[in-house]
Amino acid sequence: MSTYSEIFQQPDCLRRLFTEQRKEVEKTAAEIRRRSVNFVFLAARGTSDNAGRYANYLLGGKNGLPVALATPSLFTYYQTPPILKNALVIGISQSGQSPDIVSVIEEGRRQNCLTLAITNEPESPLACKADLVLPLLTGPELAVAATKTYTAELMVLAMLSAALAGDSPGMASLEKIPERVSDMLKIDDMIQDAVKRYRYMEQTVVLGRGFNYATAYEWALKMKEMTYISAEPYSSADFMHGPIAIVHGGFPVMAVAPEGRVFDSMMDILIRIKTDLNGELMVISNRREALDMAITPVELPDELPEWLSPIAAIVPAQLFAYHLSCIKGHDPDRPRIIHKVTETK
Amino acid sequence: MSTYSEIFQQPDCLRRLFTEQRKEVEKTAAEIRRRSVNFVFLAARGTSDNAGRYANYLLGGKNGLPVALATPSLFTYYQTPPILKNALVIGISQSGQSPDIVSVIEEGRRQNCLTLAITNEPESPLACKADLVLPLLTGPELAVAATKTYTAELMVLAMLSAALAGDSPGMASLEKIPERVSDMLKIDDMIQDAVKRYRYMEQTVVLGRGFNYATAYEWALKMKEMTYISAEPYSSADFMHGPIAIVHGGFPVMAVAPEGRVFDSMMDILIRIKTDLNGELMVISNRREALDMAITPVELPDELPEWLSPIAAIVPAQLFAYHLSCIKGHDPDRPRIIHKVTETK
Repeated sequence: MSTYSEIFQQPDCLRRLFTEQRKEVEKTAAEIRRRSVNFVFLAARGTSDNAGRYANYLLGGKNGLPVALATPSLFTYYQTPPILKNALVIGISQSGQSPDIVSVIEEGRRQNCLTLAITNEPESPLACKADLVLPLLTGPELAVAATKTYTAELMVLAMLSAALAGDSPGMASLEKIPERVSDMLKIDDMIQDAVKRYRYMEQTVVLGRGFNYATAYEWALKMKEMTYISAEPYSSADFMHGPIAIVHGGFPVMAVAPEGRVFDSMMDILIRIKTDLNGELMVISNRREALDMAITPVELPDELPEWLSPIAAIVPAQLFAYHLSCIKGHDPDRPRIIHKVTETK
Repeated sequence: MSTYSEIFQQPDCLRRLFTEQRKEVEKTAAEIRRRSVNFVFLAARGTSDNAGRYANYLLGGKNGLPVALATPSLFTYYQTPPILKNALVIGISQSGQSPDIVSVIEEGRRQNCLTLAITNEPESPLACKADLVLPLLTGPELAVAATKTYTAELMVLAMLSAALAGDSPGMASLEKIPERVSDMLKIDDMIQDAVKRYRYMEQTVVLGRGFNYATAYEWALKMKEMTYISAEPYSSADFMHGPIAIVHGGFPVMAVAPEGRVFDSMMDILIRIKTDLNGELMVISNRREALDMAITPVELPDELPEWLSPIAAIVPAQLFAYHLSCIKGHDPDRPRIIHKVTETK
């Protein structure tokens, strides 16, 4: 039951993180502002890499910071790391153990960059090597499929972004997020019922764009980890450039399309999939037009700023992957093959 | 027949590109060296985005330049582009038409960055907006699935990297690449025979790492465009962090594993897939140990430097996607749904 109970711990985890870490985040932001940072160089794997995808839009769009997602093998196997002049080097890892992520932080320090570790284990190798550490404070995550550390990673990144921008209204919006996550957990029964339709689904694609590009990736990853189906994530724009050819009558497409700047572009692709190609949609949204397109609509709260929507939007997706795993006869707490800590070089 | 004939035009295209563009590439490199460039900000979609993945390892590993892959929606829908100070802004697009890629170049100019367009259409909007243009010179690409422009994009990026590094032996290796591509085309009959086994394959994953991370993505994309199967690309390290759960007895996995720095890490995953999980492998490699693991081995030339191996390694993958499309009863020249030029915002 660890996966299920950790999904339900999320409102408490996020509340604690916001309350107890706010000062630390402000201090971290002040430290970053003191340095001449031109761009962010970010290393992560798996679920944490999806938090990195969120950071890409968040730090790029809210803080003017371009984000380069690291290619760790240049640091490990090739031993030809790039020159990180004027970079803020960030490593994100639940366990703080993966040698390749640690090696990016080490190289950042060697090159005199400011380095920041975001991890649930403040005594881990990653945390010990970094100049600055933002712990996730979720308590031990026992489930193989990460859930509460993912939303905590998004939360701490959003707090850091708001602190860097001196955005007090943003901080106020953030404070309400644990409540929004709580709202989402109330639809657990509905999701448990909805998965029945997908009992024999073997293949799907998951679409999102902008801030929710990360949500599409993380939703797909949870399905892959817990249900072993083929679930490929795409930005709706990349999907149009070729992979859309996969859609045929009845093909199931999942989409995350909350109100916001990219909503119209998501609507365009939903219409194309449903009306032109006869695909079948599951949609997470707070806009009626989008929900009405779906055979499985999942309603998000109305009052959800787009830049924070990924923290709430992933919750029904986690529940969906969990219940789908159960109904398919798998054990979501014991996914085959994978382990909690994966050490890649 | 346009896809097939364009695949076979590749040696001539690459030869022409190397001969006719070498001076232009040297001039472009000199221009870049004159500026204080801290990092590369690169925008592309679809096949060209896979060339961007190659640039990530190439410019990072050979030229010390971190590469940030652009999130174009920050420029279009959100209208909050990041600050591109000290960036070289590169746009890669076969057609040079897609408004989102053009908008990244425009913003780069607005911010006084040096901008470079890599395109097959030197009169296109992308080329007209950029400070520097490197045309691909492949002649018109008529097939919907891009093949010759992809290898030309890799070639011109490799030439640029060698020119930036003043790497004469590298340039000499590059000169031999058209011949290596020609060698690969000789196995066309073998590939045409090999696809029979995959007539009813509906799902696969494609693995690569380092320089050939791009090859895994491009191989998967060609299969998706031409055969409509689910083919998801991964770095072998990311695959270990969760998605490997998808592999079961007989599950088909494609891998690109030429001799080089990441070969041992690729071998580790091939052994895990075949020996521990009973998966079934198709492997493109020039190392006997790797080829011996595969039910469908595809041999690369021996004398292939790792950093240039993606230009040759994609060729059998293109042929595989083409013949698989035919044997499945599709028309690879008329993929359903998609068009040659996709204009995304």
